[in-house]
Amino acid sequence: MGNDIADIASTGPKLIKVMNNNNTRIMEDGKQETNGLSGGQDANLSGEEITCTAAVAWGPGEPFSIQQIRVLPPQKMEVRIKILFTSICHTDLSAWKGENESQCVYPRIFGHEASGVVESVGEGVDDMTEGDHVLTIFNGECGKCAYCKSKTTNLCAKFRVNPQESVMRNDGKTRFLTHDGKPIYHFLNTSTFSEYTVMDSACVVKIDPKAPLSKMTLLSCCLSTGFGAVINTAKVYQGSTVAVFGLGAVGLAVIQGAQTSGASKIVGIDINDDKKIKGQRMGMTDFLNPKDLKTSVHEKIRDLTGGGVDFSFECAGNLDVLREAFLSTHDGWGSTVVLGIHPTPQMLPLHPMELFDGRTITGSVFGGFKGKSQLPIFAHQCIQEGVKLEEFITHELPFNQIDQAFELLIDGKSLRCLLHL
Amino acid sequence: MGNDIADIASTGPKLIKVMNNNNTRIMEDGKQETNGLSGGQDANLSGEEITCTAAVAWGPGEPFSIQQIRVLPPQKMEVRIKILFTSICHTDLSAWKGENESQCVYPRIFGHEASGVVESVGEGVDDMTEGDHVLTIFNGECGKCAYCKSKTTNLCAKFRVNPQESVMRNDGKTRFLTHDGKPIYHFLNTSTFSEYTVMDSACVVKIDPKAPLSKMTLLSCCLSTGFGAVINTAKVYQGSTVAVFGLGAVGLAVIQGAQTSGASKIVGIDINDDKKIKGQRMGMTDFLNPKDLKTSVHEKIRDLTGGGVDFSFECAGNLDVLREAFLSTHDGWGSTVVLGIHPTPQMLPLHPMELFDGRTITGSVFGGFKGKSQLPIFAHQCIQEGVKLEEFITHELPFNQIDQAFELLIDGKSLRCLLHL
Repeated sequence: MGNDIADIASTGPKLIKVMNNNNTRIMEDGKQETNGLSGGQDANLSGEEITCTAAVAWGPGEPFSIQQIRVLPPQKMEVRIKILFTSICHTDLSAWKGENESQCVYPRIFGHEASGVVESVGEGVDDMTEGDHVLTIFNGECGKCAYCKSKTTNLCAKFRVNPQESVMRNDGKTRFLTHDGKPIYHFLNTSTFSEYTVMDSACVVKIDPKAPLSKMTLLSCCLSTGFGAVINTAKVYQGSTVAVFGLGAVGLAVIQGAQTSGASKIVGIDINDDKKIKGQRMGMTDFLNPKDLKTSVHEKIRDLTGGGVDFSFECAGNLDVLREAFLSTHDGWGSTVVLGIHPTPQMLPLHPMELFDGRTITGSVFGGFKGKSQLPIFAHQCIQEGVKLEEFITHELPFNQIDQAFELLIDGKSLRCLLHL
Repeated sequence: MGNDIADIASTGPKLIKVMNNNNTRIMEDGKQETNGLSGGQDANLSGEEITCTAAVAWGPGEPFSIQQIRVLPPQKMEVRIKILFTSICHTDLSAWKGENESQCVYPRIFGHEASGVVESVGEGVDDMTEGDHVLTIFNGECGKCAYCKSKTTNLCAKFRVNPQESVMRNDGKTRFLTHDGKPIYHFLNTSTFSEYTVMDSACVVKIDPKAPLSKMTLLSCCLSTGFGAVINTAKVYQGSTVAVFGLGAVGLAVIQGAQTSGASKIVGIDINDDKKIKGQRMGMTDFLNPKDLKTSVHEKIRDLTGGGVDFSFECAGNLDVLREAFLSTHDGWGSTVVLGIHPTPQMLPLHPMELFDGRTITGSVFGGFKGKSQLPIFAHQCIQEGVKLEEFITHELPFNQIDQAFELLIDGKSLRCLLHL
């Protein structure tokens, strides 16, 4: 399992105090909701350059430089956002480590799971205005291309997730500059490790200002990715059976989605026993640690479920796990959804003839959500259906302790550490 | 491409004369329909052993032994069939060659694509009676198991296609014996290279006696496999675009299915230019010979179709072709259906991250048809919609010239050679 996170169940949310830019205390216990936050506490700088603090990466694996940067005004169809909350996902971790050399460019501002308020909008942006509460999405939706008009995909022609992209689409330049005017590169359409960021409006989702923004941050990536894979990609139905391989934040979001969809059995698989309690809180009915089994995981799951689960979700980014996930589904109709990132150059460990057993395998990006059009509705559903968003936020820290937040993730101690800007 | 068949377009149906058991001429030009055939020309042998002629395989690649065999009466839920027409498919060819050692058992009676009349039925068979016109199917339907009751699969728990199986399910014995009582093994639930065969009733499909039985033989395998993959597995829709890799009988059936489903563009791909005319007769709109291209096939198809086809079908049993088929579909929603048999031990030539481009890959067995319940309806549709069944039958020969029929297939000269018993 790739995403091992230890000590979660026993830890719980940290009680901390966080200060905002103006040293006004905005929360005391990591639970207070942020509905009342005003996005307009700064003077109106629309059209002006902003100087603010960002965590800049200058090289693979190097500690972040918490430094002042210049943020240019949004251009046509762009939005400048004051980030209020950002968290850290394994994709940030992988990019920070520089695991994929072809994607390395420095200096760069990472971060993609975030929420905030609109500071100003560029020409042509008519669906958002200053002060709107927004989520950042790495997989945008222009709403106009053939892909956006198709009901079958959420991969926008122009703004789909692209780890190679590091500049704005408008002019091929960056909106971040060092104090002496050198470019600082963008990341995944978002770059949220900064007090202010500039994004294409196709990647900014306006949500109900009454929704609790701190918790809504999770919808920016992990919650939508896992939960959406269940309801949009796999279409898990009442009474069906589910196996979830890898119980990081995405895997736990899958469990939440499966429970909400009425799955009758939800088997969680992880090599870390500490995941058991957290998984159970989310709705997991059975837990398997492969280390404790005398048989293969898929054989055990077939035993448990009378031939295999209807749906399996691979959230570990490991090829051996992917094969187990595939084989753990019922022949004839089993469906495996791949969510894990597989940096290995190796091919799928499946034989073509195995497809004739009626099992299918599908990838899911951002849970199949068309971000701008569907996420606002999903945000409401999460609140109405009582999705346990708070369970994902195991830690909260002020933004300038981002290095510590990375360590928590590396050490497997956090699910999500929410950074307050 | 694995299934190269040359000289088809220029050949056309052979004009031959064929005699039945009683030396009565039953057809003159390979086109006459056989509605009037009586299944009761023999004395009633129900419950008795029958001695008849079969083409017995005694070793891999050896010429067939056209010999007298003993055929035992059908047991519980079994049916004894007088085979009237059988054709030869690449699966027979592969089995005859003994390409998969684990499936080799001799002596054996191959053949699975066939039609005939019921000679007698065993205890408990209440949906068929003597004289009924029937098709043999290698992928049965018991109608009672969890798989048969599920709408999502046509893989029966007990009678799904299984190349390892060589005896009857009832008692683990054969219904074929040599004159001195030694067992002759069964093949693919069918064994149709024999004047009489015994099959589980789950693998025998009763069809309308008014349907032309000689042409209906194709529904026993190739036509249903290809056409069904289009309408049941892929669900090709009006105006969609399709690429078909490998224009053997199955590939041509895919083209027929795609045309009937209203596909706006049907690209056929084969390394044999002779396929072009036949493909066009079936409804193909564009033909590509990879040997003539300066780019890869998938790049050419993307150019032709504005980004890729909606559906591709791999009918060649070749991994390189499979990868081209996968990449030739449109990202976001492209669907590849695998029909080819891949005997290689190699894994799927796809990287897990490629699934995130929104392309899917699925296997299709017997075109997704539940044979007993859906094939009778499909037979009617084929007639009503004018499916060009006759185009598939390029040759017809008397049964005792089965070796010649195999040579026609090996040499790529026939699509289907119909043997008359």
